[in-house]
Amino acid sequence: MTDVGPPERAPPRAGPDPAALARDAVALAAALIRCPSIAPEDNGAQAVLAEVLGALGFSCTPLRFGVVENLYARIGEGRPALCFAGHTDVVPPGGTDWSVEPFAGVIRDGVLYGRGAVDMKGNIAAFIAAAAAWLDRHGGRPPAALSLLITGDEEGEAVDGTVKVLDWMAERGEIPGFCLVGEPTCIDRLGDTVKIGRRGSLTARIVVEGTQGHVAYPGRADNPVHRLVTLLSDLIARKLDHGTAWFEPSSLQITTIDVGNPASNVIPGHASATLNIRFNDRHTAASLGAWLGEAVAAHAPRHRLELSCSGEAFLTEPGEAVERLVAAIEAATGVRPRLDTGGGTSDARFIARHCPVAEFGLVGTTMHKADEHVPVAELGALVRAYGSVLDAFCG
Amino acid sequence: MTDVGPPERAPPRAGPDPAALARDAVALAAALIRCPSIAPEDNGAQAVLAEVLGALGFSCTPLRFGVVENLYARIGEGRPALCFAGHTDVVPPGGTDWSVEPFAGVIRDGVLYGRGAVDMKGNIAAFIAAAAAWLDRHGGRPPAALSLLITGDEEGEAVDGTVKVLDWMAERGEIPGFCLVGEPTCIDRLGDTVKIGRRGSLTARIVVEGTQGHVAYPGRADNPVHRLVTLLSDLIARKLDHGTAWFEPSSLQITTIDVGNPASNVIPGHASATLNIRFNDRHTAASLGAWLGEAVAAHAPRHRLELSCSGEAFLTEPGEAVERLVAAIEAATGVRPRLDTGGGTSDARFIARHCPVAEFGLVGTTMHKADEHVPVAELGALVRAYGSVLDAFCG
Ligand SMILES: [Zn+2]
Ligand SMILES: [Zn+2]
Repeated sequence: MTDVGPPERAPPRAGPDPAALARDAVALAAALIRCPSIAPEDNGAQAVLAEVLGALGFSCTPLRFGVVENLYARIGEGRPALCFAGHTDVVPPGGTDWSVEPFAGVIRDGVLYGRGAVDMKGNIAAFIAAAAAWLDRHGGRPPAALSLLITGDEEGEAVDGTVKVLDWMAERGEIPGFCLVGEPTCIDRLGDTVKIGRRGSLTARIVVEGTQGHVAYPGRADNPVHRLVTLLSDLIARKLDHGTAWFEPSSLQITTIDVGNPASNVIPGHASATLNIRFNDRHTAASLGAWLGEAVAAHAPRHRLELSCSGEAFLTEPGEAVERLVAAIEAATGVRPRLDTGGGTSDARFIARHCPVAEFGLVGTTMHKADEHVPVAELGALVRAYGSVLDAFCG
Repeated sequence: MTDVGPPERAPPRAGPDPAALARDAVALAAALIRCPSIAPEDNGAQAVLAEVLGALGFSCTPLRFGVVENLYARIGEGRPALCFAGHTDVVPPGGTDWSVEPFAGVIRDGVLYGRGAVDMKGNIAAFIAAAAAWLDRHGGRPPAALSLLITGDEEGEAVDGTVKVLDWMAERGEIPGFCLVGEPTCIDRLGDTVKIGRRGSLTARIVVEGTQGHVAYPGRADNPVHRLVTLLSDLIARKLDHGTAWFEPSSLQITTIDVGNPASNVIPGHASATLNIRFNDRHTAASLGAWLGEAVAAHAPRHRLELSCSGEAFLTEPGEAVERLVAAIEAATGVRPRLDTGGGTSDARFIARHCPVAEFGLVGTTMHKADEHVPVAELGALVRAYGSVLDAFCG
């Protein structure tokens, strides 16, 4: 069913002392940035991780699905108490606004620059450094099992990445008690935000059929643009909900309308639009699809409606596990994290089907932008925060 | 100011006996159809008319403006009591649905086929045959002056045609007492419809500027599609008027909306639409432009609004002259014409600035279509109807 095997190439990139690199979050983050792993390319990033994790005593399993390289690493006995989930792939550098080489791992004035610095090679490096320190504290004998789920396709299609690794883990009893995703969740300062859910995303393409005609004789035509405009105006005037204790109100955005009729004296034969709904856990893709279908049918008897959902909404209900995470972060950073569910989608939506999941990582301001960067001091603070989390879940 | 001179070529196309051709509406219509005068090409059509009108005693002045050939012909003393206005240019045959050669002037089973048969070479031929008979009735000594304004650019840009000939006529005191435009106005049977006005036509292009952003963060963007949809929904819900004694309600039709945003997770930066208003004489292009400007500004502070008017609404108020026309048509056809103002635009909109104008001609069902045609019997009936009109205005 799955195409699992060793990666095609795994050149040793961790240098002469992988155990030392594992303990140096800044050096490890820079080493990862130097692998230009634009999704779904890997370019050696996961081999670096396998080597440093192997040096710490983790057993590593490269999991290749299709063209995507993934890595599962674990240490300790039995079912993991905690799994750290991350991605080594990055978005393209984009544009020419960089003041440094995006894949050089430059450190300048105490700041590490490079594509992936905050999303999310820096976070992975910080977690590994924290795990090394945690193992050191326990004399190399982990008091609980810990795992890492590293995918090479979070920014891309996300088909041959986390989803398939989770299936593989489920078959082997490797689903953890709790999963921490290392996305850059913080807004202003490290520690200020933990994500406990994400909104779902549903895209709808609507094609309204009418009857072409001459503008001088509208009675003989059926203007599909008028039907579409009335429908869309109706949709954006409605409120899907007023938000919940943990979610903002769901939001519908029309992203395009296209008719392409160059003749200003002709009523066109059809008109199309695309809209996207970011929805909270009061809805599902199915319930929204039915709601849209009803509205479209009411305004446009002849239509096509194509729906595509890239993720359902999910929420890890705040409770004992989330409180343990929040307290650990607060203890290390001095900041009490706000529980948040905003922003785009992440692989946490797949993990939520298997176990409780939350996301915590660096300040994300520069993610996906030119000159993506993280202060060296912030990386050090994240090592301490992740160490506190490790003590809380695997102490 | 104007580039007036003889046409570049005027090959004699009327055959050996132009005076006989002038009296045979079917043969003259067929001869005109055989000149493939797709706007603004003339291909000899106006030379045929100059020859047959010359043979009847008309003095003919070819008037070339730019690339467009026009013809002014007149007979009798003083200011014309009546002017017949028409166009020799035709729209392209289009498509491959013709069962005959579009420019062959084929007569089959008592029906004349060809591009221009009803719009409006048949009407011109019928009027000339009626004028020949009228002159014959008066022994070649017309009791009143009669003119013909023939343009070669009604279906095209309409810039170097009727408008410029009218200016030329005005300078020479040639503006007639009444103008009859030979457009194919009838709906079901000859005599059923006279047009005494036409709606105006205003086209507006609206570009709404917004602020681009990610659909997950609508609060940081300003979706121009939402502004445009709300604006357009507002515009199509309003009624411009409820019609008048002589006009249908004005009608607004959105002809296109174009955003062209391929990314369903991106709120686009701008959105544009085009709409066309066919308006009656309760409005002007200026009043509608102001109305639109206010509505657009209310919904979209940052916008561009481009207006283009291809004709104001006009009406020849029913009165003595229109009643004389209607009575003459009824006397000849046995059908009392309905006074109408519907349909597209015609050159009558330019003539209305100078004198009272009405339009009357063949049943227009096949105009601009494949297999455009007119029954020979209907052409004969139109010759009699136009003869009755000539008696009424120039008797
Ligand atoms: Zn990420
Ligand atoms: Zn015409």
